[in-house]
Amino acid sequence: MKLTILGCYAATPRTITNPTSQVLEIKNQMFLIDCGEGTQVQLRKHKIKFSRINHIFISHLHGDHFYGLVGLISTFMLLNRVNDLHVYGPKGIKELILMQLKASGSYTGYNLYFHELESTESEIVFEDEKVIVKTIPLKHRIYTNGYLFKEKNSKRKLNIEAVEKYNIETCYYQKIKSGGDITLEDGTLVSNNLLSFNPEPERSYAFCSDTVYNETILPIIEGVDTLYHESTFLETEAHLADKTMHTTAKQAATIAKKANAKTLVMGHYSTRYGNIELFKEEAQTIFDNIILADDGKEIKL
Amino acid sequence: MKLTILGCYAATPRTITNPTSQVLEIKNQMFLIDCGEGTQVQLRKHKIKFSRINHIFISHLHGDHFYGLVGLISTFMLLNRVNDLHVYGPKGIKELILMQLKASGSYTGYNLYFHELESTESEIVFEDEKVIVKTIPLKHRIYTNGYLFKEKNSKRKLNIEAVEKYNIETCYYQKIKSGGDITLEDGTLVSNNLLSFNPEPERSYAFCSDTVYNETILPIIEGVDTLYHESTFLETEAHLADKTMHTTAKQAATIAKKANAKTLVMGHYSTRYGNIELFKEEAQTIFDNIILADDGKEIKL
Repeated sequence: MKLTILGCYAATPRTITNPTSQVLEIKNQMFLIDCGEGTQVQLRKHKIKFSRINHIFISHLHGDHFYGLVGLISTFMLLNRVNDLHVYGPKGIKELILMQLKASGSYTGYNLYFHELESTESEIVFEDEKVIVKTIPLKHRIYTNGYLFKEKNSKRKLNIEAVEKYNIETCYYQKIKSGGDITLEDGTLVSNNLLSFNPEPERSYAFCSDTVYNETILPIIEGVDTLYHESTFLETEAHLADKTMHTTAKQAATIAKKANAKTLVMGHYSTRYGNIELFKEEAQTIFDNIILADDGKEIKL
Repeated sequence: MKLTILGCYAATPRTITNPTSQVLEIKNQMFLIDCGEGTQVQLRKHKIKFSRINHIFISHLHGDHFYGLVGLISTFMLLNRVNDLHVYGPKGIKELILMQLKASGSYTGYNLYFHELESTESEIVFEDEKVIVKTIPLKHRIYTNGYLFKEKNSKRKLNIEAVEKYNIETCYYQKIKSGGDITLEDGTLVSNNLLSFNPEPERSYAFCSDTVYNETILPIIEGVDTLYHESTFLETEAHLADKTMHTTAKQAATIAKKANAKTLVMGHYSTRYGNIELFKEEAQTIFDNIILADDGKEIKL
């Protein structure tokens, strides 16, 4: 799993900072999370192939998380994309995008599917053999969801030495990976745990932005490997965090601690702060393992 | 008059090029013309004060001319703008912008006026004491207008030496500037042409993008000082210009020549061409005085 931060600053795009967007590479899929203005240029800058992005998850309809989406969809069209594109986001997103395409007389040559969300309970929005994605209902000024991305490693790993020792034919390998015991030609039953190793741990990544401090998300993100949690303000501006329904660095660290997250990635900094190290300093009074997101940063998860 | 090119490339924003947007400084006003994605960052980059932009002219609703508008309007809001903002553009633009603001639960603290256009005849869209702006109906795949910006220098210039010689009091200066003759205390009538000079020439700028080759605009732009005319393609791709309703370099030069323009500024280059000098070479076979637009270029008019 690899996370590439395309932008992680709040509010307005500037020459030196970009609004929220990130790419999660998980099980050879590229998931785009949020899409502020300028995201398509950031994707080009970081040499992320447009054709590898088939799923886009939008947290909420504030401009700094979503104004780059219509341009990206249009560019996909101009580049003669053929792959289906799936967009997950708040109810209303489909009409906003389609109205703009219609006004420009444009129609995508690829299939464009919108998965509109309106539940305030966590729900599965994507699932295939290798990955599952659930919403994390957040509390912000408008309807907002974070997303929990989780690997599915249900298959056990073959113990090559053991299967060779027992002379087991390759046609049984799938059965072993699925946890099955094997009966040899002489009738001996060989238990699965002699033929395979436990699956790799199922890693997980939770994206939580934008939100006020909210403990109701804890059961959903419990034990997550990496938690990205917004920290728009420092405690000195806690009153602004309250008023605008954002989180302080200390509050983000408290969520990470209470959720037993392994690592906290901080971001969505207000552009009023010149030095983002201050966020780390404040959060480390509560939680140790902290990474500061920054535009262009690649984080191995 | 000064023109700052924020972006002048067709279709998709890239790391090295920006979609259409330019700022015309005329009689101490800043007019923003078109607003592709990323325009607000380009404005910051070129240190153009947001508060000086009170009028935005949008040619048409293709993304590369307009997807940056909602973000700019939102940023004005976040920066607590107080001045009125006027947006001129095709019918439908108001709903597209307001729907997005509404979805984000945002309301501008400043007055936001939309002047929606639907006429296919040239019409005056802005006029004050110093500047007049008219539409230039263009022919493109969707409803499109260029804009003609013209100085109004109706006032004559005071001949200081002469008014001092005749001992004329300052309260008569406005009358002289407006062309009036003066009767001295001894009853002598002094003709205005002895007291003032002709006004400065009224300079003009025509913005024409996007359009197919279209001679019906000639009477509107006749004698214009500076003509910005799109030249998306070279003649080798004339079939694409036809198909997509754009113009070749040679065609743009032909329009400039037939309109008796003094200078032609070329832009809206397709990103397929590596070297924009080719546009100048092709156009100079028809018309001499050519400036190639390029992102960040400042052109004194």
